[in-house]
Amino acid sequence: MSPELLKQKIRDIPDFPKKGIVFKDITPLLADGKAFRAAIDQIAERFQDRHIDLVVGVEARGFIVAAALAYRLQAGTTLIRKPGKLPYKTHRTTYALEYGADTLEIHQDAILPSQRILMADDLLATGGTMSAAIDLITRLGGHVVGVAFLVELLALRGRERFGDREVFSLIQF
Amino acid sequence: MSPELLKQKIRDIPDFPKKGIVFKDITPLLADGKAFRAAIDQIAERFQDRHIDLVVGVEARGFIVAAALAYRLQAGTTLIRKPGKLPYKTHRTTYALEYGADTLEIHQDAILPSQRILMADDLLATGGTMSAAIDLITRLGGHVVGVAFLVELLALRGRERFGDREVFSLIQF
Repeated sequence: MSPELLKQKIRDIPDFPKKGIVFKDITPLLADGKAFRAAIDQIAERFQDRHIDLVVGVEARGFIVAAALAYRLQAGTTLIRKPGKLPYKTHRTTYALEYGADTLEIHQDAILPSQRILMADDLLATGGTMSAAIDLITRLGGHVVGVAFLVELLALRGRERFGDREVFSLIQF
Repeated sequence: MSPELLKQKIRDIPDFPKKGIVFKDITPLLADGKAFRAAIDQIAERFQDRHIDLVVGVEARGFIVAAALAYRLQAGTTLIRKPGKLPYKTHRTTYALEYGADTLEIHQDAILPSQRILMADDLLATGGTMSAAIDLITRLGGHVVGVAFLVELLALRGRERFGDREVFSLIQF
């Protein structure tokens, strides 16, 4: 199943989460077993020779992409979560949003130094959340090998935040 | 890797999320690629001849188990979320907790009638959340073939809520 066919499984939801925003809903793609498998396989093929130790997902839809990729790449998976959700000692980072700020946490022992990390999320918009997540991983000594998204919104130019890192998105709008 | 070895990857966190509760932290298991793969494979083997169309995960750790199982079983995956998170039209259910109540939502078109569903979550405690999730699925016409957990807390007897359904947990405490 080609990226063009997979793209047809993404549904526009007008005015979500707020008026004027058109939300890209990936749930029809996830619910189609053949489409979900094809999407994960095509992302994984891009990174399968990169010796990935851990795929890191950002709460909550990111967990879906990260867990399936981790299984496919025979890697582990690690969670980056909203504050107060992780049970063990954490590091945290606070980052600016359009209005206000948000905080992400990771377990202090989530990454072993020099582990090879693939970052994964469902959608790349402005890249603010992923940029903060990469900051947490590098602070723990992890080596971010690449950044993978199911969907990228090209007009928002989020990938410019990631400098020279390898950024791969399967479906672009 | 046997369930007994996998069990050693689960870490006790005292007094989380509140005083007196010992939280079973699955993140060390998830972070170990071999352990994660073995855990998913052993759950999947139990259901691989049951013609599963969809694996349903409950926000947020449930997404990890559901997504990896869906990939392994060549099924799709569907999300049950907290209120306000799903972008399309939803059905919802409100269920009682020890103190207060909680609500879960699912997209109205998430399940096709008679689809064969595997429910998945990381941990079975009292079973209240999973019971509410099954209620949502059956209301949409889905056929719940089984219920799978990474970890089960036997003393809480949560599985008694599921009657005659097939309930499988990989690791028991």
